[in-house]
Amino acid sequence: MIVSDGMGPAYTTAYRNFRDNPDTPEVEGVVLDDIFVGNASTYPDQVSGFVTDSAASATALASGVKSYNGAIGVDKNKKPVTSILQRAKQLGMRTGVAVTSQIVHATPASYVAHNESRQNYNELADSFFDDRINGEFVADVMLGGGTKYFERQDRNVTGEFIDAGYAYVDTYNKLATLPAGENVLGLFAEVGLPWALDDLRKNRLAYLTEHAIKHLENDKGFFLLVEASQVDWAGHSNDIAAAMAEMHDLNLALEYLVSYVEEHPDTLVVLTADHSTGGLTIGARGEYRWAPEWLQNLKQSPETIAQNIVEMDSPVAYVSDALGFELNDKEKQQVVELAKQGDLKARFAGIKALLDIRSNTGWTTTGHTGVDVEVFAFGAGSSQFYGQYDNTDIAKKLFGLLPKRAPVVKTETTPAPKEEKSQCDFETDWRCE
Amino acid sequence: MIVSDGMGPAYTTAYRNFRDNPDTPEVEGVVLDDIFVGNASTYPDQVSGFVTDSAASATALASGVKSYNGAIGVDKNKKPVTSILQRAKQLGMRTGVAVTSQIVHATPASYVAHNESRQNYNELADSFFDDRINGEFVADVMLGGGTKYFERQDRNVTGEFIDAGYAYVDTYNKLATLPAGENVLGLFAEVGLPWALDDLRKNRLAYLTEHAIKHLENDKGFFLLVEASQVDWAGHSNDIAAAMAEMHDLNLALEYLVSYVEEHPDTLVVLTADHSTGGLTIGARGEYRWAPEWLQNLKQSPETIAQNIVEMDSPVAYVSDALGFELNDKEKQQVVELAKQGDLKARFAGIKALLDIRSNTGWTTTGHTGVDVEVFAFGAGSSQFYGQYDNTDIAKKLFGLLPKRAPVVKTETTPAPKEEKSQCDFETDWRCE
Ligand SMILES: [Zn+2]
Ligand SMILES: [Zn+2]
Repeated sequence: MIVSDGMGPAYTTAYRNFRDNPDTPEVEGVVLDDIFVGNASTYPDQVSGFVTDSAASATALASGVKSYNGAIGVDKNKKPVTSILQRAKQLGMRTGVAVTSQIVHATPASYVAHNESRQNYNELADSFFDDRINGEFVADVMLGGGTKYFERQDRNVTGEFIDAGYAYVDTYNKLATLPAGENVLGLFAEVGLPWALDDLRKNRLAYLTEHAIKHLENDKGFFLLVEASQVDWAGHSNDIAAAMAEMHDLNLALEYLVSYVEEHPDTLVVLTADHSTGGLTIGARGEYRWAPEWLQNLKQSPETIAQNIVEMDSPVAYVSDALGFELNDKEKQQVVELAKQGDLKARFAGIKALLDIRSNTGWTTTGHTGVDVEVFAFGAGSSQFYGQYDNTDIAKKLFGLLPKRAPVVKTETTPAPKEEKSQCDFETDWRCE
Repeated sequence: MIVSDGMGPAYTTAYRNFRDNPDTPEVEGVVLDDIFVGNASTYPDQVSGFVTDSAASATALASGVKSYNGAIGVDKNKKPVTSILQRAKQLGMRTGVAVTSQIVHATPASYVAHNESRQNYNELADSFFDDRINGEFVADVMLGGGTKYFERQDRNVTGEFIDAGYAYVDTYNKLATLPAGENVLGLFAEVGLPWALDDLRKNRLAYLTEHAIKHLENDKGFFLLVEASQVDWAGHSNDIAAAMAEMHDLNLALEYLVSYVEEHPDTLVVLTADHSTGGLTIGARGEYRWAPEWLQNLKQSPETIAQNIVEMDSPVAYVSDALGFELNDKEKQQVVELAKQGDLKARFAGIKALLDIRSNTGWTTTGHTGVDVEVFAFGAGSSQFYGQYDNTDIAKKLFGLLPKRAPVVKTETTPAPKEEKSQCDFETDWRCE
């Protein structure tokens, strides 16, 4: 399961345009175009209106249950609900998350844990260690950011995972040194990973995905949640350059997964967004124009450019080089003024405004919007995802594709789970346990 | 074929929310949800960039050919291309258009005529009469607005249609008096029809559609272009109340067509948009909220309210009654100020701003945006429309569903068309003629 956080319909069209080869008359398709299957509504529980946050929508996508904005794996009465990742673990499959946010951020947290509030990052980190399913940890592989929440004065959760036998890595390169099939905690940043534009590894999501799968593959199958977490962050900050770079990071992960499914046709990949972010529009201000060519050659993120600009002897030369195009006279003047600006936020806004005007990009909010999101799927069972449905239906379809019972495995350490003795009919009630 | 002009993805989600029953936890589906099948890219010919106008996109939808913004049924070299409506007429089917704009507006014009510019309304009206296919007029039934272009000092095109045997009606009620199977020119307004919110007939598009079909039905089949033209106009004017009312007008036409196809399962209905308009977003300004309940009880369009407000003794009472809710103190003050405003555009902007704040609606442009549009289909052959493709592919799929040759009909007045003698292979070249 892949969640591209914040990727409303405008992002997918924009990315196709961003990748267009101007030497051909047609706009070339990208992987997303090959795997599009449906549309999903995203609204949260009625108490939160028509516009969801990432917690409510991740809970819906993970468990099939609508909840209030802020809910992590709990229903509107704050009662825990079972996620598809947790169900997979109940069934004896291996499980993991590979994300570009902190691993306790709303989306991965809703697949792994339960909490009444997404803000309780420390509690969520504790839950990642403390919760058990059939006596095992919920997630066997956890890759992303978040040392701030796992390595605290009051509790060293990372240390506890190491003591419990998890391999721990804190750089991408160390991740590559692990032998396959390990339980892994990989935390590569204090909070979220750097923007794709700033990261040393330009294919960071594909890399994390590939390594997660390497550790998850086994005879009983696996469930992996992948999140392109920072499409949403680019949307919140109304940063079209970062948005396109995060979409490209997603695209590289998809290209890897397409080749993986070709070799492993029993694998299903489902991709959707939890909502759209920023009110992004392709074109704005009355102009019938969108010009992604100005977004293609950035050497750093607009945020980093805004940070660095004050230290530069020649801000104009620096910004021109970092953005990858020659500034015009008006832009040069703007950059000179920006460099004198003491407030980072104002400098960041100035760089983004310059790119918005160049590309003619529109935004209506620093928050989310309620438009339906697209659904993409390929591999075994993907034909079930055609058409229009609700985000909760995605979980329901996935639950339906899991086996009804765990295979009977004779082992002294893992007794048959209690759930197996219930009278619950998995065929008719996909949420029972 | 139905074109909902300007109906990007945000419009369809917004309409579902607009129709939500607040007494139930789920957001009820509308007809659109039952018939969703795919997504289409809308970009025009490369010369016009990534954001299309209605002419280029209608030409793409009608003929399967990308052209420049402004092109009516001509390619980028201004050479005429054959529309699916024209092809249907070549094959001996009956043909029609039923729209809420003037019938020579970009979308219907691109199905019926050819002109290098959408602005040439008079020339287009002339073409509607002057062009012939197999010696017949291109369209047998034409319903919409446009007396301004058909009844001119320099030429009375309406009179010429009457002399040629067309029934002419200028009111909805007169349309109902015609016996079935007529050739009909129905022009119900000088330019476009009134806003749905202002029209005496609240189901105007369903009504026009039903009557068009009544006159088109015959043994050889028919092609009808229906256009919800004014979704786009509501988008251009950033009028969320009008947008929802125009969507409802479309919805009623769809409900009629669903029942029609149930009784006539050999009929195919395909619906898409030509592009999105206005950069509409569901939620804005950082708020996770969209409140369509304030858009449900308008008695008149915001534009008409803005027109009338200056003549009212009590503008506050009038606006409150016309909008269908009690104004708060701030809004009352705004309305008092608006009523003193001499400029209609400024008054209109004021009423719309009030509704945007109530509903928390966002807009980024008075023009179009480049986001992909949804495709909807039901009836015979509708399964061909699943997935992601280009707007030109919609025409190509439709051409593929038409018979390859006209049935041989022995008649003295209609000789076999010249096209029938060409060496062109319709199977491999769907545009040949
Ligand atoms: Zn977000
Ligand atoms: Zn338009």
